[in-house]
Amino acid sequence: MSIQGYDNIRAVEWSDNGLKLLDQRLLPRLEQWITFSDALGVAQAIRDMVVRRAPAIGITAAYGVVLAAQQRYEESSEHWKNLIEEDFKLLADSRPTAVNLFWALDRMKTLLGGVDGNPVASLLAEAKLIHEEDVAANLHMGRLGAELIGDSCAVLTHCNAGALATGGVGTALGVIRTAYAAGKVNHVFADETRPWLQGARLTAWELVEDNIPVTLIAEGAAAALMRQGKVKWVIVGSDRIAANGDVANKIGTYSLAVNARYHGVKFMVVAPTSTVDMAIACGDQIPIEERPQDEVLSLAGTRIAPDAARAWNPSFDVTSADLVDAIVTEKGVVEAPTAAKMAEMMKG
Amino acid sequence: MSIQGYDNIRAVEWSDNGLKLLDQRLLPRLEQWITFSDALGVAQAIRDMVVRRAPAIGITAAYGVVLAAQQRYEESSEHWKNLIEEDFKLLADSRPTAVNLFWALDRMKTLLGGVDGNPVASLLAEAKLIHEEDVAANLHMGRLGAELIGDSCAVLTHCNAGALATGGVGTALGVIRTAYAAGKVNHVFADETRPWLQGARLTAWELVEDNIPVTLIAEGAAAALMRQGKVKWVIVGSDRIAANGDVANKIGTYSLAVNARYHGVKFMVVAPTSTVDMAIACGDQIPIEERPQDEVLSLAGTRIAPDAARAWNPSFDVTSADLVDAIVTEKGVVEAPTAAKMAEMMKG
Repeated sequence: MSIQGYDNIRAVEWSDNGLKLLDQRLLPRLEQWITFSDALGVAQAIRDMVVRRAPAIGITAAYGVVLAAQQRYEESSEHWKNLIEEDFKLLADSRPTAVNLFWALDRMKTLLGGVDGNPVASLLAEAKLIHEEDVAANLHMGRLGAELIGDSCAVLTHCNAGALATGGVGTALGVIRTAYAAGKVNHVFADETRPWLQGARLTAWELVEDNIPVTLIAEGAAAALMRQGKVKWVIVGSDRIAANGDVANKIGTYSLAVNARYHGVKFMVVAPTSTVDMAIACGDQIPIEERPQDEVLSLAGTRIAPDAARAWNPSFDVTSADLVDAIVTEKGVVEAPTAAKMAEMMKG
Repeated sequence: MSIQGYDNIRAVEWSDNGLKLLDQRLLPRLEQWITFSDALGVAQAIRDMVVRRAPAIGITAAYGVVLAAQQRYEESSEHWKNLIEEDFKLLADSRPTAVNLFWALDRMKTLLGGVDGNPVASLLAEAKLIHEEDVAANLHMGRLGAELIGDSCAVLTHCNAGALATGGVGTALGVIRTAYAAGKVNHVFADETRPWLQGARLTAWELVEDNIPVTLIAEGAAAALMRQGKVKWVIVGSDRIAANGDVANKIGTYSLAVNARYHGVKFMVVAPTSTVDMAIACGDQIPIEERPQDEVLSLAGTRIAPDAARAWNPSFDVTSADLVDAIVTEKGVVEAPTAAKMAEMMKG
């Protein structure tokens, strides 16, 4: 199962030498892979955004546990289960908002509890399974999301929720790829997504690679785009979804959701159920990472603001469920999400 | 009349050597002035955004006419009124959206029609009067706008509508300076304002120079800021206001207005009546300049998007009058603007 011609990009790969990550800080100028052999390096790579977005972080952290187990079991075949606690902590502390990180670590830890002898083979099998499940979830969500789109139209996406953000074809971009292949999407507008420019650097790159027509806009132009009737859907990913359907996603998403509702544009969130945190009742409880001020004050290494200026740099925002038309997961679609509908979907 | 301590910045100055403009492309890294001696150079400076924003462009164009008159009268004291037509055209073609440009050129042309002999002295007097009127209008609007603000609060501004955008203390920043001096504004959040980064480079610089506390945000963070109740007013300038109160301003303004209304945040537009175009019934008729794609595709001279990517780069957007709580001009305040209220204000 795949979308012919639209599944060539990968950003996370396991190899005999360790975990290979495509360095997303350098795209689209340079396609450079870095190989990691311990949890410390993997945690640092997540923090520094060599790899980014909830599903990709989850997969990466799972492989990080494999690397940690290799090292700790070599260190002491007797005490490795104690020693590896530190690696779990390192990985868990790398970024706070994406719940897939904790979900993947929990899953690896549960498996680890029952392991006797050398744990590497079974942990690696579990990490690969998490990875493969994400690939399959992407494809399934792609079909479910594409079904929601009516006549051929242009859509707007924010940040990057594509192959670079997941194990497979992407969440939002998985839907967009599937819908484009089916003739339901004819053009993609991409928010450049300040401050990290994921839209300009990553989403535009993915779509250009796949020959899907893409036009970049500054985020300030999104409302004008909607006012002119140029897009029918906003399609985004998520880093954590609360039990009531409130959605945390890259800063700027909430503004799009408010504008989409005002202009009668539909708003779709695409994320695997590993992104849904049923332990959190509503979005206001989702921890929102604040990243260094310098990401806003500087650009491409050059200070743009005056030296004395300060910045506020929340990395995510929360969109209330009442602004969301559909949440698409691999377990199904929840339209106009509520706590009851979300609970029902999670059971399915 | 001035706001003690908050009126030190100037960007447009007449000197014996010609028209001096502070090069706003280089701020805040470098404070460099360029001296212009002909209309061609002035028109190019407006197009290339050495100088920018409606009121400053109007003043600059008026001085540009003085330079043209000097040159043309020297060329031919007989035919200069014919020859200068070309300079008027050059200046008028420099940028399409800011109506103050055409307003200032019309005013200079009207005066010129009745001139006998060497026109330079009377044209220079008129240009200086336009400049002085703008300085006075800024101060008056500052007081009128500040009166609208209740208890001490934080406000959000977009782009740069300050001293760098006008002849005096600014339109939006004139209100903010006055309100800060009066203890009614305690903090300013500034949108960085992609793609040209006027907020990061110019507004932050002006406020830092005046010791007014300023925090820079990526535009995507504005909605989260409002959701958290951190700002009570959005205060912006304008490049053209239609007869019904629709407001053209820097791209991104409309998104803020939609979000402000959604969050119960007040929305104030500050502009002199030279920005009001009573010949245009509503905002949809305002010509919106589209600037080069490269402003979005590149950053500080470095390409950020992949080579094959394209961009849409409208420089302005239109905010409907029904999203505006108050338009502040030097002739008075129009709350909840309508065509009838705008016409009444323009008479006053």
